[in-house]
Amino acid sequence: MLNLFSARWAKDRVKEARQAIQDVLDAQVAAWNQGDLDGFMTGYWHSPDLTFFSAAKVTSGWQATLDRYRERYQAEGPDKMGTLSFSDLEIDLLGPDSAFVRGRWRLVTSKEPLGGLFTLLFKKKPEGWRIVHDHTSG
Amino acid sequence: MLNLFSARWAKDRVKEARQAIQDVLDAQVAAWNQGDLDGFMTGYWHSPDLTFFSAAKVTSGWQATLDRYRERYQAEGPDKMGTLSFSDLEIDLLGPDSAFVRGRWRLVTSKEPLGGLFTLLFKKKPEGWRIVHDHTSG
Repeated sequence: MLNLFSARWAKDRVKEARQAIQDVLDAQVAAWNQGDLDGFMTGYWHSPDLTFFSAAKVTSGWQATLDRYRERYQAEGPDKMGTLSFSDLEIDLLGPDSAFVRGRWRLVTSKEPLGGLFTLLFKKKPEGWRIVHDHTSG
Repeated sequence: MLNLFSARWAKDRVKEARQAIQDVLDAQVAAWNQGDLDGFMTGYWHSPDLTFFSAAKVTSGWQATLDRYRERYQAEGPDKMGTLSFSDLEIDLLGPDSAFVRGRWRLVTSKEPLGGLFTLLFKKKPEGWRIVHDHTSG
C-alpha cells in the first residue's frame, strides 16, 4: 500500500510540475501577443547565469536576453511584435527540480512569418519554474 | 559522519558522471577526425526516440540522424569529413541519470570553416551515457 501511495503521489507531482511549466509557456505566449515583453521575460530565470543560444551566438544573462528581444522584435514598437505560437511541445521531467522541453515556435508579423525549434531547460526556483537555458533556431 | 560520507560519495559520483560524459564527447571527436562516422554515432542513443534539432528541422531516431550526417558530411568520402573540435563545454548533472551539456562546435574542412553551438541532453543508459537529444545551430 505504501508503494502504491508513493507511486500515486509521485505521479501527481509530475503532473503538477508539467502543468506549471505549461502555464509558464502559455503566459509567455499571452504576454508576447499583448506586446508585453517584460511579461514574456518573466518565464526566464532572472539571473546573470541564464543562457540563450541562437545560431552561433551565446547571450548570457537575463538582461542581455531582454535587450536582444527588444532589439530584434520591438524595434518598431510593442504593437509590432506579431503573433507568437508554440506547438509540438514535449515536457519531460528529469527530476523534482528540472525539466527539459522541446517544441516548435512560429511568429507571424506583417513581414514574412518566422519559425523554428527550441530546446529549453527549466529549473524549479523559489519563484516558480523558470527557463534557465534556451536554445532557439530557425 | 554519515552526512559527510554521503556528501563525499555524491561528489565522487558527480565527478565520475561528468568524466564519463566528457569521455563520450572526446570519443566522438576522435572518431569524426578519423572519418569514422559509425564511431561518432556511438555517442548517440541507439533508439528511434533520439531527437536531433537543427535550424527548423527535426530529425527523429538514430538511423535518420546517421543518414543526415552521411548526406551532409560524408558525401565526398570519409576522408573529407574535416577536423571537428568542441570548446566551451559545460556539463551539468541534473540527477543520477541525466545531464545537460552546452558547448561550441567547429568544423574545418577544405571549404569555409563551419561552427556554432549545441545543447545536448544526456541520459545514463545500460550501455553508458548517451545523447538522447541534440540541438545544433550555426
